[in-house]
Amino acid sequence: MILALAGGVGGAKLAAGMARALLPDELVIAVNTGDDFEHLGLQVSPDLDTVMYTLAGIANPQTGWGQAGETWSFMQALERLGGPAWFQLGDRDLATHVERTRRLASGESLTAVTRAICERLGVRHAVVPMSDDPVRTVVHTDKGELEFQHYFVRERCEPRVERIDYRHSAAARPSAALSAALANPALRGVVICPSNPYLSIAPILAVPGVREAIGRCARVVAVSPIIAGEAVKGPAAKLMRELGVEPSAVEVARYYRGIARTIVIDRADAALAPAVEALGLHAAIEDTVMRDDADRERLARACVALLDRTGM
Amino acid sequence: MILALAGGVGGAKLAAGMARALLPDELVIAVNTGDDFEHLGLQVSPDLDTVMYTLAGIANPQTGWGQAGETWSFMQALERLGGPAWFQLGDRDLATHVERTRRLASGESLTAVTRAICERLGVRHAVVPMSDDPVRTVVHTDKGELEFQHYFVRERCEPRVERIDYRHSAAARPSAALSAALANPALRGVVICPSNPYLSIAPILAVPGVREAIGRCARVVAVSPIIAGEAVKGPAAKLMRELGVEPSAVEVARYYRGIARTIVIDRADAALAPAVEALGLHAAIEDTVMRDDADRERLARACVALLDRTGM
Repeated sequence: MILALAGGVGGAKLAAGMARALLPDELVIAVNTGDDFEHLGLQVSPDLDTVMYTLAGIANPQTGWGQAGETWSFMQALERLGGPAWFQLGDRDLATHVERTRRLASGESLTAVTRAICERLGVRHAVVPMSDDPVRTVVHTDKGELEFQHYFVRERCEPRVERIDYRHSAAARPSAALSAALANPALRGVVICPSNPYLSIAPILAVPGVREAIGRCARVVAVSPIIAGEAVKGPAAKLMRELGVEPSAVEVARYYRGIARTIVIDRADAALAPAVEALGLHAAIEDTVMRDDADRERLARACVALLDRTGM
Repeated sequence: MILALAGGVGGAKLAAGMARALLPDELVIAVNTGDDFEHLGLQVSPDLDTVMYTLAGIANPQTGWGQAGETWSFMQALERLGGPAWFQLGDRDLATHVERTRRLASGESLTAVTRAICERLGVRHAVVPMSDDPVRTVVHTDKGELEFQHYFVRERCEPRVERIDYRHSAAARPSAALSAALANPALRGVVICPSNPYLSIAPILAVPGVREAIGRCARVVAVSPIIAGEAVKGPAAKLMRELGVEPSAVEVARYYRGIARTIVIDRADAALAPAVEALGLHAAIEDTVMRDDADRERLARACVALLDRTGM
């Protein structure tokens, strides 16, 4: 059994590749919920949705969020009524939020709700939240403290980031499924997907016990989301610069030192391999840009093979 | 100034006719909220919506609820997720419920929310809830006690009705706008629209003080929703039979005795005029079927003219 940590578009793509490479009982995908928020009275879990929709084959490939073939009548009507329009909610996507909110209100855990929605969407691999307790990523910026979605969507990542905190993480417990995966004697290893380390992976590691359990696991492979100094998608490179870190696969490796043993860097960054190795980590060179299902599966198989060669 | 009491499709049509016949400051439309319910975490006010949408010219003329040119992506996606699908929510219509719920949760009254939504929809006449407090119509049937929408929509009015109660009405206060209209010295009279007397008008009259204030008003005209022993739309006739009352304009007149002085009956029921008069009421004969805007306005003007000839 392999545990994948994921959040965001790159993470969802590799998770989908792993779901192509592994059987349902061979994979647990633990997803960041630090981005979750309440909007219009609805419980929105953007990273869970991106992973679920990507695995279900219904993700919108253009936007990186929401569903393909979406319609927008709700949003148009809401704008006419003067409702808050900064967070786009497609008509189909909205059903996920409404159904999640309804089930949570009836007392189900986020894990149970996610399982039920996955089942209905035909997702057979385990997609689990990092925690059933609320953790909220808060971005401290030159424009003040911003809830994650306010920073990410409303302010389009424009404010300069000074610091990030994962609010309520100290009180959160890992979800039972994540705990079980970490404690499973059959755990072959952990793959940290090419998600934003600070915004998607750090909240998972901030849940008490998770960082330690992964640190104890000999076989951990992390895929750098930074290629040639830039993120394929999203604000990772800008954010690293603002935090005083050079956006490079080497700095991603440094960030994951003590957690991962192997860092997968893109072929474009092959020249950085010695700098990664100098950190005491193994650098593996792969094509990490995932343009289609075949790319996803190839990178996933490479990560699985690396796990078996890592550690011990 | 004229006060109209309305609920349901027939009531909304006449209210729309009155809005064509009167200036915005000459009309207050007080709407039944006994049908309101919480569904999927959303505050749904079906009668307010029917009146607002009808006045805004965006009502769906086929269904009698919801908006014209509606799309259904949300509902399809919700069904796929296994969510409750018995209450149809169109994508545009949903925006009304979400925005209402959001504003109510932020502390606005139903009156204020309704005013804001009307403004955005271009409805210039005052559409006001009968009360800002919750009143819930409960239908006691041979299948047990049913919340109104469960009876009306989920069970399609099929269970046999034994009794109806307007739960929480004793504790409800009329909305400030309804109270003000009833106390307004310039009140020219009250028009009871051709809505279901038991399901749409009775809840309004059940709000403490409303029945008495209308009873004190000399000029009250009620339009019978029963024509030739049948309702134009909805379960009024079936319901009257189940309650042991013959569905006829005469029984509608008997129901409104002590409240209305004039009962408008359809030309098809002209032969019933003497029976209505025998109740001590004035029977006025009009064409009450409203097929288009012209019909609505004509009937509205007739009601206004009758008000001025009624009472004293």
